Amino acid sequence: MPPSTWQDTAEQKRASLLALIPPEWRIESPPSIDEQVDVTEYIKQYLSEEEVQITQCSADVIARRVGGGEWKAESVARAFCHRAAIAHQLLNCLHEIFFTAAITSAQTLDAYYAQHKKPLGPLHGVPISLKDQFHVKDVETSMGYVGWIGTFEGKTGTGKEKVHESEMVKMLRKAGAVLYCKTSVPHTLMSGETVNNIIGYTLNPKNRRLTSGGSSGGEGALIGVKGSPVGFGTDIGGSIRIPAAFNGLYGLRPSTGRLPYEGMANSMDGQNSILSVVGPIASNVASLRLVTQALLDQKPWLLDPLVHEIPWRYDHENAILENVHDGRGTKKAGGKLSFGVMRTDGIVNPTPPIRRAIDTLVKALQSAGHEVIPWDPPSHKPIQDVGFKSWIYDGGADVRSAFALSGEPMASQIDFYGSLDREFTASEIAATNVELRRLKKEYLDYWVGTQALTGTGRPVDAVICPLAPWPAARPGRYRYYGYSTWVNFLDYTSVTVPVGNVDKSVDKVEEEYKPIDERDKGIQDDYDPEIYDGAHVSLQIVGRRLQEEKMLAVAEYVGKLLGK
Amino acid sequence: MPPSTWQDTAEQKRASLLALIPPEWRIESPPSIDEQVDVTEYIKQYLSEEEVQITQCSADVIARRVGGGEWKAESVARAFCHRAAIAHQLLNCLHEIFFTAAITSAQTLDAYYAQHKKPLGPLHGVPISLKDQFHVKDVETSMGYVGWIGTFEGKTGTGKEKVHESEMVKMLRKAGAVLYCKTSVPHTLMSGETVNNIIGYTLNPKNRRLTSGGSSGGEGALIGVKGSPVGFGTDIGGSIRIPAAFNGLYGLRPSTGRLPYEGMANSMDGQNSILSVVGPIASNVASLRLVTQALLDQKPWLLDPLVHEIPWRYDHENAILENVHDGRGTKKAGGKLSFGVMRTDGIVNPTPPIRRAIDTLVKALQSAGHEVIPWDPPSHKPIQDVGFKSWIYDGGADVRSAFALSGEPMASQIDFYGSLDREFTASEIAATNVELRRLKKEYLDYWVGTQALTGTGRPVDAVICPLAPWPAARPGRYRYYGYSTWVNFLDYTSVTVPVGNVDKSVDKVEEEYKPIDERDKGIQDDYDPEIYDGAHVSLQIVGRRLQEEKMLAVAEYVGKLLGK
Repeated sequence: MPPSTWQDTAEQKRASLLALIPPEWRIESPPSIDEQVDVTEYIKQYLSEEEVQITQCSADVIARRVGGGEWKAESVARAFCHRAAIAHQLLNCLHEIFFTAAITSAQTLDAYYAQHKKPLGPLHGVPISLKDQFHVKDVETSMGYVGWIGTFEGKTGTGKEKVHESEMVKMLRKAGAVLYCKTSVPHTLMSGETVNNIIGYTLNPKNRRLTSGGSSGGEGALIGVKGSPVGFGTDIGGSIRIPAAFNGLYGLRPSTGRLPYEGMANSMDGQNSILSVVGPIASNVASLRLVTQALLDQKPWLLDPLVHEIPWRYDHENAILENVHDGRGTKKAGGKLSFGVMRTDGIVNPTPPIRRAIDTLVKALQSAGHEVIPWDPPSHKPIQDVGFKSWIYDGGADVRSAFALSGEPMASQIDFYGSLDREFTASEIAATNVELRRLKKEYLDYWVGTQALTGTGRPVDAVICPLAPWPAARPGRYRYYGYSTWVNFLDYTSVTVPVGNVDKSVDKVEEEYKPIDERDKGIQDDYDPEIYDGAHVSLQIVGRRLQEEKMLAVAEYVGKLLGK
Repeated sequence: MPPSTWQDTAEQKRASLLALIPPEWRIESPPSIDEQVDVTEYIKQYLSEEEVQITQCSADVIARRVGGGEWKAESVARAFCHRAAIAHQLLNCLHEIFFTAAITSAQTLDAYYAQHKKPLGPLHGVPISLKDQFHVKDVETSMGYVGWIGTFEGKTGTGKEKVHESEMVKMLRKAGAVLYCKTSVPHTLMSGETVNNIIGYTLNPKNRRLTSGGSSGGEGALIGVKGSPVGFGTDIGGSIRIPAAFNGLYGLRPSTGRLPYEGMANSMDGQNSILSVVGPIASNVASLRLVTQALLDQKPWLLDPLVHEIPWRYDHENAILENVHDGRGTKKAGGKLSFGVMRTDGIVNPTPPIRRAIDTLVKALQSAGHEVIPWDPPSHKPIQDVGFKSWIYDGGADVRSAFALSGEPMASQIDFYGSLDREFTASEIAATNVELRRLKKEYLDYWVGTQALTGTGRPVDAVICPLAPWPAARPGRYRYYGYSTWVNFLDYTSVTVPVGNVDKSVDKVEEEYKPIDERDKGIQDDYDPEIYDGAHVSLQIVGRRLQEEKMLAVAEYVGKLLGK
């Protein structure tokens, strides 16, 4: 066999992926971006009325309907497979398709239900999409590297190829989930845009002139266009939250040690100053809670040695619910929440639509009787600088070796890995860890100290913060990660919340704007109302470390307040 | 001022420490080791009857008596200061003495009680000793380095000298504890014997021919001779459990992230593959539980960014109690515990007294209706080899720089740090972390898999394991750490339990013993019944990660079974 070029290998992979889409689901001539900027409604024309009805539902509703016997798992699986297939042809959002296995497992679930008159588990019949870091039996994991195609994480002959499954995959199956596709990522995973030499560039379904985000960009696009009701991504610098925010979705970035990462592929595995975490993305919080609880109920600490033994904490959730009117609990007299609001980190300012979103959210909270105080924490600059070092500890050795496998080129988004030239020493890494801990302690002290500033007797319950300077980045222009990374570097909990959409008639460029510096100017200039019109605008709700229950409760309440 | 030699500096420090002992508490001519091998009873002659009565009590009893107004905090403080002062003169176990501050704080507590008719907190009037890694206001931290004397962790002009306090110190004060001394450590902290150029060698009070253990060796000696009712040490390879075991005490090695390490001095700070943890040592489990609960009740996660938000879990404790008759709970019908027993790790065998202790404990458990099955886990060899790398990541740079400050020589116990010559690279560290995670996963799978082997429907509740090959090491002969380090490398929870004492008429050398290899032969040869007679013999009870409540409950029950 003649050695194939990376182009050949990528082309074959691309073609084999398309070949897994049944002919009747193929689109002959998809519209150009300019012909159809927003495909979130457009996509429906390819689907039956029943398929549309099913796929417009959120995961919690699907779980209730299939788990209650109202819908068949197979119908639901077929509907989402179909919608995902169309989505991929419009957005380039899939890396792996295993619809046949999905239909089979859905049929097995239906048979189980017919026999036992009850669902197999809390996710019975819920289709779940997975970022292409999860290993799934019978399916490849390329993680966007051409050189990984046909291997197990770049190695051959491991015996794990297409056999090994990540622990969470096994858990999801046990809970009754139907797995059917893996979604696109930027090679290296270290970008807020999703681009690689296999599937190209993943587009934002709401506005195909923009990125769907990254690194869980395939998840963002697919769930954003309702080709999946819920999916899992990972986040080491924003990679769950960026695609969630850019696609108008809720995404949970839990703290490390809450959900099981065991057995997944990763970049720079073993770097343990800042750990990547795994978490869900969906169109509503109820879906996030459903899958998070389903995982915690299976005691992931018995399957992943890095997961803490912390079951779902109802008392934490109730500590939020008793302070809000949201229909899920009883509000106590005088109860209210207290928020910190960070309008800018002082390094790069948010663009006009994000600023308006903050105003909208603050007003909504204040109107509902909650307190919002300015968030004036220790500077984020050293946090960003120190945390970023962890991403270049190995001087790019890991990612360069992955590129070297095939000889493929690096996308411009991550090509700084090509110019690094030295590894950190143990002493340098230790010094970084000490400095990070110092910064974490300083921030924690600030947070706890806000108890003296609030009217609740508690420190602020959550911080409202931009997730990125723009509603979404324009291709090739993701140049500032500070709004997402500080959360990772401090290991905080965060949930993105959709707030609205860009309206070019309202979100105008501020003529008299004075940029902080050249970088800020560049980022402000990226915002063009004509290009951005209609794009989703989201923010994040940030809590301290390991505050998943509380932040989900806050995010859900905020969504209700905003009518989302 | 002429530059002083390290010998001068050490001598001055030694003298200034003795000068802090009131003249009436000085011993003119302490007995030689051979004159008085065991000083645990001998020490009483220096104390008044009331002082003996007070100091023979455990911390939980003291808390009850002082907290209930029966005893004055000042009397208790004076009694322990006196006994600690004598202890130091017999054992070389103190680095810092602050009796005057202790008496003052005890008086303040008494005044508080007189005014409020209630204790300040759960540790009201309980004297607590601290390993010399804790920073205490107005007191130095040398950590056994001559070069750290007069500095803050080797640096001058930081503004933190004698001002900065470790978070846990502040918490203990808040709970009402009386702090009065800091205890000796081996320089570098990386030894199971306690020796440095300031105070020399810390002796084992039960058998002064043996080490008191390390690195919390001063704690072990002081608590072992009842010069402290409870103290805190740290453990990165056995440093809480070794001195606890060698002194017939209970010592808790919690998993990382349970108790607050924030603001303490350390060796090789920032190495974060295997973290050192802080935990208590005492003569009974009730005292360990008392201080652990007192800390958790103060929500240490609000003070230390690395502490997980896991309050004291009564349900975990009850899950053990409902399976035992121990007077603390109601045993459910048919309830029993299941233990794995590891009689050897196959690398080095335990010496005869340890083997007898295992037999004793296994028989006691079986007689009480519990199950004991052989523990046949994945080999500990790779766990030890991989974990050990974390201790030499920096090629000795950190400890060598500490020695260089004064020019003092390294003790033979840790002089391997002098012969290292290179730092690990980021890639090597990452590979170590990946391998460690793999080994953790493998071990976890084995543990959880024992569910199929037990008669309880659960995996084994705890593992019975030696803590070291001997009851205690002889000076200069601590050459095998495998029995303690595997717990650190897997981040498991462990509590030492005293089982008995060496009886030279029973614990004879096994003539037909076939050594595993030369190292094993050397270690077996270290055991000499004549030398070891009377020494404490202990074991450890090991649980998976973050099982502090359960392991304390098991250890307490085991102690009761053994009549300890």
